[in-house]
Amino acid sequence: MFKFKVIHKDRFTKARIGLLCTPRGVIETPVFMPVGTQATVKAMPPDVVAGLGYNILLCNTYHLYLRPGDEVIKALGGLHKFMNWKGLILTDSGGFQVYSLSQFRKITEEGVIFKSHLDGSEHFLTPVKALEIQKNLNSDIVMVLDTCIPYPISFEEAKYLTELTHKWAIESIKYKKRHPDYGRAVFGIIQGGMFKELRKESTRFIVELGFDGIAIGGLSVGEPAELRNDMIELSIEEIPEEFPRYLMGVGTPLDIVEAVIRGVDMFDCVLPTRNARRGTVFTSRGPLSIKRAEFKTDESPLDPECECYVCRNFSRAYLRHLFNAKELLVYHLLTLHNLFYYAKLMKTIKEAIKLGKVLELKEKVKEFYEASNNF
Amino acid sequence: MFKFKVIHKDRFTKARIGLLCTPRGVIETPVFMPVGTQATVKAMPPDVVAGLGYNILLCNTYHLYLRPGDEVIKALGGLHKFMNWKGLILTDSGGFQVYSLSQFRKITEEGVIFKSHLDGSEHFLTPVKALEIQKNLNSDIVMVLDTCIPYPISFEEAKYLTELTHKWAIESIKYKKRHPDYGRAVFGIIQGGMFKELRKESTRFIVELGFDGIAIGGLSVGEPAELRNDMIELSIEEIPEEFPRYLMGVGTPLDIVEAVIRGVDMFDCVLPTRNARRGTVFTSRGPLSIKRAEFKTDESPLDPECECYVCRNFSRAYLRHLFNAKELLVYHLLTLHNLFYYAKLMKTIKEAIKLGKVLELKEKVKEFYEASNNF
Repeated sequence: MFKFKVIHKDRFTKARIGLLCTPRGVIETPVFMPVGTQATVKAMPPDVVAGLGYNILLCNTYHLYLRPGDEVIKALGGLHKFMNWKGLILTDSGGFQVYSLSQFRKITEEGVIFKSHLDGSEHFLTPVKALEIQKNLNSDIVMVLDTCIPYPISFEEAKYLTELTHKWAIESIKYKKRHPDYGRAVFGIIQGGMFKELRKESTRFIVELGFDGIAIGGLSVGEPAELRNDMIELSIEEIPEEFPRYLMGVGTPLDIVEAVIRGVDMFDCVLPTRNARRGTVFTSRGPLSIKRAEFKTDESPLDPECECYVCRNFSRAYLRHLFNAKELLVYHLLTLHNLFYYAKLMKTIKEAIKLGKVLELKEKVKEFYEASNNF
Repeated sequence: MFKFKVIHKDRFTKARIGLLCTPRGVIETPVFMPVGTQATVKAMPPDVVAGLGYNILLCNTYHLYLRPGDEVIKALGGLHKFMNWKGLILTDSGGFQVYSLSQFRKITEEGVIFKSHLDGSEHFLTPVKALEIQKNLNSDIVMVLDTCIPYPISFEEAKYLTELTHKWAIESIKYKKRHPDYGRAVFGIIQGGMFKELRKESTRFIVELGFDGIAIGGLSVGEPAELRNDMIELSIEEIPEEFPRYLMGVGTPLDIVEAVIRGVDMFDCVLPTRNARRGTVFTSRGPLSIKRAEFKTDESPLDPECECYVCRNFSRAYLRHLFNAKELLVYHLLTLHNLFYYAKLMKTIKEAIKLGKVLELKEKVKEFYEASNNF
């Protein structure tokens, strides 16, 4: 039903090209998943997203569970039909937003109690509940509930939260085994904070449980890029080749290339969409803020080297005007451009892997982009 | 250069089908012009607007003069190039927004002094300046500066403001004659408030001056629909057949049909776009608010009889969810649907005129739509 196959391995790095085979279709990796938090990639009609070459999205369980509700989405035939998305959908467990968005949260051995950021209503999210909600959403790839480990944090706290993640992972895999009709891929999540041994242990533990894929969690929480790269490396060492490896919530163009080189297959990040709404676009020569006064009469496109719809049809001057006037169209156009950039980046990365030139590509990307410390 | 030709006259009413021939293309009338205030139809890429069948837009001189500035747009090759719109553009004179938006205004014999609603800067708009700004914008059809007459108002005040409109109209036509290279159609505007004789006089006066088209101004300012229809009728009586007649800022589907029956050729209105952003859509069975709780699990489209992209692809439940979540996509989708509705309405009106069935069409529209009192 769900299979992952490495079809090409780079000679010089751990980078690889793989195929994620699912009942809904096949995805070539490394893959970037745009974020469609509330059942929409913000400001983007779904067919425009598909037209950019994307065939998998990430949606947020926390948001959809609270509004419109997973039962509502189930009654309407699932998330794909609801949002008219013909590609795959990966959903997170809801855990991350419970920690980052809810008004109140309390972690217990059984799960996490939280109050909705929308209306203050109280909810209890458990590992089993997270899987049930994601089934109602009809997600293709579901994530298990994990804990969120801040940075920095004491070793004792990190250990406690990592072990709780493991306990919940066991409950998740048991639930899946009890329900052979569960019918979707389930990914386990590695924690361990920034403590080498703990992270190694966590990786071995999660790998052992026999999930369909392995997510590297708890990164991009404010740690330096080097530390993050170390953590990715030592995790990957413990993940056998046959598992798809998903680095959650990462990252900048450089972050992605660095992780691909270390053997990561899947990515999601709000950067292209969120930055667009804030007026910052990705170009072949680095980030560019459309707000700059010098663009007032600049007839050139966002990126002269870009062939997207926006760069073929609109000037910086026009986009700056729309942004200053807070015109809705600008959020669509800048998002479209940024998603085009990320789609092309992933294509370029795959080509570079095939040609054994991914390290050269990294140097090129590094010229114009930095690693992120947090987003 | 600019010609108008009536190609079909209804046997039973004053409705007619015409062709507006301009250097940029030919427009069939009756025509509805979507409003693209700040050089964008809000939330709509220009090719999507064109794809709905629109080939003429209205843009607002007041807004574009203040931001990004008509000189900037001129330097960038004019409004069409700036916003990537291949159809025609009609611009208003800026007068209406001076009265409705600016922080401060003072009418003199020479023009109107006002302060920008953006930064409080002071400006002086004269009849000649209005024409010059619109030339900088490279508008295809420009409107002369007129006064705005509130309702209700005393006869004396209405008379004074109507005569000032006439004085400015003379200055406008003189300017055009002095500049044979002005190179665009100029429309005069009738005022006269709701006073029959004054409006008749104003119509005769404006018609005499030899503009390329005649706009019926000063309506939809809070007057009852019947009074508005009377004013339209008596204006039309005084406008020879060969002039295109433009009813500014109108209206609901019923308003439009009523005016077509009375001989009006051109319309613009914010209703389809503004209502969309407020969650109200036009359907074959009347207006519908997407916010209604009963739509929570409603799988049907906005309008089961509609064939637009939105109705073919999304449910009321999904659109309600997006609206509740304030997702940017919903403003695009509802606007698209409403503009499709208006495009189809105009098509239906033209077919009904050809078949001599425009009065029947009015009865059908009346079943589901009311006349507006103000918007």
